[in-house]
Amino acid sequence: MRKTAPTPRTRIRRSPEYAHYDTRQLYDIIDAAHLCHIAFHDGNSVHSLPMACWRVGDHLHIHGSTGSRLMQSLCIGMEVSISICHFDGLVLARSAFNHSMNYRSAVIYGCFTPINDETAKLEVLDHFMERLAPGRVRDIRNGNRKELGATIVLRLPLTEAAVKIRAGGPIDDEKDLDLPVWAGVLPVALVKLPAIAEPGQQIATPDYVSSWTADAHKPV
Amino acid sequence: MRKTAPTPRTRIRRSPEYAHYDTRQLYDIIDAAHLCHIAFHDGNSVHSLPMACWRVGDHLHIHGSTGSRLMQSLCIGMEVSISICHFDGLVLARSAFNHSMNYRSAVIYGCFTPINDETAKLEVLDHFMERLAPGRVRDIRNGNRKELGATIVLRLPLTEAAVKIRAGGPIDDEKDLDLPVWAGVLPVALVKLPAIAEPGQQIATPDYVSSWTADAHKPV
Repeated sequence: MRKTAPTPRTRIRRSPEYAHYDTRQLYDIIDAAHLCHIAFHDGNSVHSLPMACWRVGDHLHIHGSTGSRLMQSLCIGMEVSISICHFDGLVLARSAFNHSMNYRSAVIYGCFTPINDETAKLEVLDHFMERLAPGRVRDIRNGNRKELGATIVLRLPLTEAAVKIRAGGPIDDEKDLDLPVWAGVLPVALVKLPAIAEPGQQIATPDYVSSWTADAHKPV
Repeated sequence: MRKTAPTPRTRIRRSPEYAHYDTRQLYDIIDAAHLCHIAFHDGNSVHSLPMACWRVGDHLHIHGSTGSRLMQSLCIGMEVSISICHFDGLVLARSAFNHSMNYRSAVIYGCFTPINDETAKLEVLDHFMERLAPGRVRDIRNGNRKELGATIVLRLPLTEAAVKIRAGGPIDDEKDLDLPVWAGVLPVALVKLPAIAEPGQQIATPDYVSSWTADAHKPV
């Protein structure tokens, strides 16, 4: 288990008590996310864009169109910083200054490389579908050669990353503890809502859809 | 109402039918968010970090410690790209290729400047508290001179931004419409959960806490 930052730029200086450098917490945060924010500098300016992402083993994956300038830029190994943050609640302290948020955050550095081998590409795309809807990969029309050819799949090794997690109630100054002010947490969660079928379908509802609806109002 | 991108780098090229350049959609996306992802290049590498944010009028605000290297860097007018994205659901099409996500996304470019005037700083911090818990600003112990002095508040004009919104069901190829595959949306939402009071309090529950709990399972 890694207890120190892998590099100077991943060492967390503010509130280091919330820092983690182990892959367990990093993978949990990635696996709970459907999207990440990718930052890069294209030579003219810095950009930050949201992208769908998924993990397979010790790599993060994204995909996109061969026509996308972003994907073309990332293909050539431009350095990126990737941010994922789950917002878990507002933390209300007795003083304005000690208010905070609960969150699970990961920041990852590295370079993407394309997966060019067609079999390997199909395999990680199947992993992506399995992540979205387990079992669905057997139902759908799979990508044909033209569609696959129009899709770039990139992967980035999860070797340089830092995790920061804050959970629990407010941390007030000792002298503020007796103030007559409500203190606690206003929690939030990203939850599933009942599935919405396209109108006019004569299709039996697959398990991954009915279980999504059965889990409505539970965390994603 | 603005119908075109304010600058070349905010012009959305991929799926331009989802693009918006008007402040109404931009402000709605910001006001629904409690955090944003800020990208910048510090001369050595690119970074992307999550930060709490709030809007007052036509500016986005962030705050942090004077001891934070990030805040010190942003203070001197480094160019940033800011990304906010609300994930609204998985869109399941009949073919693998046409799967998508529903989302509301904003990308903002600009430079932060510090609010140095103490009265102006207090005013935007009060706006922040009002955003977190309406009315609470009258309950809490407000920041003293030392705490205020240790806090940097930065603002960025919302003049260069692009919004991309996808909503609704899948868009399948005509030839795939009769395939025996379930199609539709698996929606998600960020919802409020019941408030958690710090143990041992003898304080009446304020309105903004009881209304949060009354709104449990409704969107944030």
